[in-house]
Amino acid sequence: MNSSLTGPIEVVGAGLLGTSVGLALSRAGIEVWLRDHNPDNVRTAAGLGAGVPSPGRKAQLVVVAVPPDRISEQVRLALDTGAMVTDVGSVKGSILSSVEDHPHAARYVGSHPMAGSERSGPLAASVALFDGRPWAITPHASSDPDVVDVVTQLATTCGAVTKVMSPHDHDVAVARISHLPHLMAALVAAQLSDAEASQLALSGQGVRDVTRIAAGEPRLWQQIVAGNAATLRQLLLDVRGDLDGLIDVLEDPSGLTALLERGVRGARAIPGKHGGPALATTSVYVSVPDNPGELARLLADVGASGANLEDLHIDHDPGRPVGLVEVVVALEAAEGLREALVSKNWVVHR
Amino acid sequence: MNSSLTGPIEVVGAGLLGTSVGLALSRAGIEVWLRDHNPDNVRTAAGLGAGVPSPGRKAQLVVVAVPPDRISEQVRLALDTGAMVTDVGSVKGSILSSVEDHPHAARYVGSHPMAGSERSGPLAASVALFDGRPWAITPHASSDPDVVDVVTQLATTCGAVTKVMSPHDHDVAVARISHLPHLMAALVAAQLSDAEASQLALSGQGVRDVTRIAAGEPRLWQQIVAGNAATLRQLLLDVRGDLDGLIDVLEDPSGLTALLERGVRGARAIPGKHGGPALATTSVYVSVPDNPGELARLLADVGASGANLEDLHIDHDPGRPVGLVEVVVALEAAEGLREALVSKNWVVHR
Repeated sequence: MNSSLTGPIEVVGAGLLGTSVGLALSRAGIEVWLRDHNPDNVRTAAGLGAGVPSPGRKAQLVVVAVPPDRISEQVRLALDTGAMVTDVGSVKGSILSSVEDHPHAARYVGSHPMAGSERSGPLAASVALFDGRPWAITPHASSDPDVVDVVTQLATTCGAVTKVMSPHDHDVAVARISHLPHLMAALVAAQLSDAEASQLALSGQGVRDVTRIAAGEPRLWQQIVAGNAATLRQLLLDVRGDLDGLIDVLEDPSGLTALLERGVRGARAIPGKHGGPALATTSVYVSVPDNPGELARLLADVGASGANLEDLHIDHDPGRPVGLVEVVVALEAAEGLREALVSKNWVVHR
Repeated sequence: MNSSLTGPIEVVGAGLLGTSVGLALSRAGIEVWLRDHNPDNVRTAAGLGAGVPSPGRKAQLVVVAVPPDRISEQVRLALDTGAMVTDVGSVKGSILSSVEDHPHAARYVGSHPMAGSERSGPLAASVALFDGRPWAITPHASSDPDVVDVVTQLATTCGAVTKVMSPHDHDVAVARISHLPHLMAALVAAQLSDAEASQLALSGQGVRDVTRIAAGEPRLWQQIVAGNAATLRQLLLDVRGDLDGLIDVLEDPSGLTALLERGVRGARAIPGKHGGPALATTSVYVSVPDNPGELARLLADVGASGANLEDLHIDHDPGRPVGLVEVVVALEAAEGLREALVSKNWVVHR
């Protein structure tokens, strides 16, 4: 490590991401300067403890956290000050293209924390937003290694887990694991926008999960998609090829099963929540009255059983005051948990 | 109500759905006869309390719960016995086409509980599988009203909420809210099946949610999709039209935003978990050590605050023993909950 993150850090754009960066750096004792074209955002972020209004002097590092269509301009302005510069935008290649002819482009290293996109504004910020999340660091060919060091320390100081990759590899990756899923969710949801209520009444958890992210802010997503258009176009053409194939084989068992099996492989390839291989888990279902306190009693009994909860889902039964709670635990812990819960008089289902 | 569900009920196919029906009817004191081409399944289901091996006599109602490609044949055989007949298959039109020329087709009324598809076999069965779930009842033009009554009572006795609709309307609805989402999830997941680990390492909750159902059993889904192929083909052609449009407007803000806004409308149109309009909720984020007991302590504090938990999500931070727990409550309960949790020393984030 040749250079240390010492501050001061100037955060440009005091929205969800910028304010959260400010909160996390302030927690670590690093001086943070806040700048935003909207003075209300600076006041709010400063009031939350994310830093102080920027004095307009040269910072050690400028973190550009403005909407996608304004990032390149702000990165160039920040390079003009002599500071090291990073940004937290969702697409890296198009920013680099607009920045790499800057005489001090070596002081720029892009980055992208994989956190918090559906809420916005400084009031949605959180000191823990990046805790344990992946944060891509995307140096370009002429990036100064010292700047890579400092930007890496920015991410780890915010609590994130860094993944170093080229801007191009990053954009290919997020096209697949973020932008394509978003657009496909939007295509499914668009088909529901003119569905009759009687059709929607049959909705289960599956369609809810598939379409959840489609509720995200359209203008933000338009900018993200436009910034990664070239990579996404190729991916969408691949998907269109698969879709055409699917339409052709709808009634052909072997053809359809081949696609569905690719889907199973892909769904299983996503790493587990801890970042490593997915833990083999299973679910224990418990009926829980929909009252405050009942779920706590259940969780206390789960805890007392010694099983470590991997995840929990609550499925309220439409029209009745009982919820079916799905308790997700490691495969080998399930049988003991079932027995423990039954002994405490819970209605347990497999 | 002209006819009552009195039993005995013969369940044909002692898998997940059939065994769960048997458990629910047995709970209600109704005699259940179990039949399956695999005698192990009958023994297992009977051992769980789902009924007794079928004596081969005429039942009041036969519930056909076999895999999709064998339903029509079993419905016809059941009609031959003189019993009323229903089935629990995911597609209704193709079954009706194969059954309506039967001389006793009036005694057949199709149905479809919206429950439990990713697990299979009698050991996955649950007496509560249908509690509060939608259960479509799909009479055809010549269905005997008495049979409609009895099948409706079957569903309500199992704890479900009935939705009466024509087989055609049912198939159009499930194409939209179940089969299309499944196929689109498979298309997204298929693009991940050959992705590099370094790309997948950036995966967040969005792509996990979009692709979760793609892990379902390919052979079962092949049969479901094939049975609804005509309706699905039209829907997939519509989606392909949207996808072509999307590829054309990737860099055009107004065109792209229009599709994304349709997606937002569609995602919001899905009814809330209680079946009515979606409750206005918000999330409170809390850092929770990843140990048994800690979550219970949190939930006890949530309960004590008086807030009713609408949903809960656990997001383990990759590589560290702290989870970020998203507590979903009614909008108006959030501020009080935040204050209550902070007063109990929880690290609460917006």
